[in-house]
Amino acid sequence: MSKPVILISNDDGISSDGIRALWRSMRKFAEVHVVAPHTQQSAVGHSVTIAQPIRAYKVLIDKNFYGYAVTGTPADSVKLAIRNLLKGKKIDLLISGINHGSNTAVNVIYSGTVSAATEGTILGIPSIAVSLASFTYGDFSAAAKFSAVIAKAVLKHGLPKGTLLNVNVPPVPKDKIKGVLITRQGKSFWDDYFDSRMDPNKREYFWLSGRMSLKDKSTDFDHPAILDNYVSVTPLHYDLTNYEIIDDLKDWNLRV
Amino acid sequence: MSKPVILISNDDGISSDGIRALWRSMRKFAEVHVVAPHTQQSAVGHSVTIAQPIRAYKVLIDKNFYGYAVTGTPADSVKLAIRNLLKGKKIDLLISGINHGSNTAVNVIYSGTVSAATEGTILGIPSIAVSLASFTYGDFSAAAKFSAVIAKAVLKHGLPKGTLLNVNVPPVPKDKIKGVLITRQGKSFWDDYFDSRMDPNKREYFWLSGRMSLKDKSTDFDHPAILDNYVSVTPLHYDLTNYEIIDDLKDWNLRV
Repeated sequence: MSKPVILISNDDGISSDGIRALWRSMRKFAEVHVVAPHTQQSAVGHSVTIAQPIRAYKVLIDKNFYGYAVTGTPADSVKLAIRNLLKGKKIDLLISGINHGSNTAVNVIYSGTVSAATEGTILGIPSIAVSLASFTYGDFSAAAKFSAVIAKAVLKHGLPKGTLLNVNVPPVPKDKIKGVLITRQGKSFWDDYFDSRMDPNKREYFWLSGRMSLKDKSTDFDHPAILDNYVSVTPLHYDLTNYEIIDDLKDWNLRV
Repeated sequence: MSKPVILISNDDGISSDGIRALWRSMRKFAEVHVVAPHTQQSAVGHSVTIAQPIRAYKVLIDKNFYGYAVTGTPADSVKLAIRNLLKGKKIDLLISGINHGSNTAVNVIYSGTVSAATEGTILGIPSIAVSLASFTYGDFSAAAKFSAVIAKAVLKHGLPKGTLLNVNVPPVPKDKIKGVLITRQGKSFWDDYFDSRMDPNKREYFWLSGRMSLKDKSTDFDHPAILDNYVSVTPLHYDLTNYEIIDDLKDWNLRV
């Protein structure tokens, strides 16, 4: 039986440790291709580059293995991989990550990591986003192991059309992880503020900062699950319609 | 009774005709503030700027009226407006637009116009995104009139927490518009490809292009509604969970 073909991308850039950990884990059972942004793209959300051209060039990922660095966003990278760089190749699975930092709750909508997986899903490829829930904890080994398990499960079961998986792994060693929970996207959000500062020429500038404001308590939600040392797996789609209020809006009788 | 306070933003930039049309329409019944990106930001999706600082400066919008231009994305502009520039002011409504070009179906996830309204919603302000569904048709007057009607309806009825309205107006004169339909986000998508070209130094570059692939037929969906000359109003939220497959995923029994 031939190996499955896996496309890896991310938003931390092609030189990140997370993408290398993912490639090392996937290459054990799959033919792996890496196409990712050339630089760090965090919080780019689901953006695409239309006002200017993009380029792709080969870079060394690991011993004798090369990937493509793309001068664009995560979604650009996935589009260019599927439409041009790997054209004609049947891709069985896309994995985006491993991101250094969580992508949970309301923050999912700012996530370049999730965006790459969303783009794969739009283009008809079963897709997974994986994040290690810490900016500082640097051991990607447990996250890489869980990525392999979840990748194999998706290759076996498939995913419904238009649905991707958003995986977040707690920043602890594998033996401290209690298991995997299927969760929903929470309502916690980044309670942010702008630091107002003066530049050397006495002109004001602003820098975004903040902290997670935890609104969800049960491990049915993504962020509490990882805080309790579970791997969180959330099925996402990109139909944003709030069906519940369609009938109420019809009663507004809008007219000019 | 005091006038409602309306914040206007967009993704086409503070110098666009669409934002000026919106301000002229809203000022008739509201106290209006304009805070928007300094340059065109199309297809930035829901991105925020965290890796570098941003600035804000005053620019003339229209006779004697100034707004703030922000050196960032639509979401940055809304965050900075609410957190700093208009701090302490109670904002009753946010309107993003009028975008030059539709924001419908799958394309909603790439939309900076919708992103500004999403950011307003996250920050607790009833929010509306408005788009004129053409890149070329330049008469914003009908879209501005419908914006005023919908803005007044939202000020009267409110919106459920976490829900925004995505409005698309067909590119025809007001007397050709058949009315307003409450719709759902469609499954049509931008069927895109990269134009591969050579630069003057014989190095390849790629430029994204494409066309809308219409997958929805009935005017219950956003894009068919505007093609049939209706104003489309879609209620959106930002809970991306696909609840339908949570139980199936639990049956996968994922473990390492």
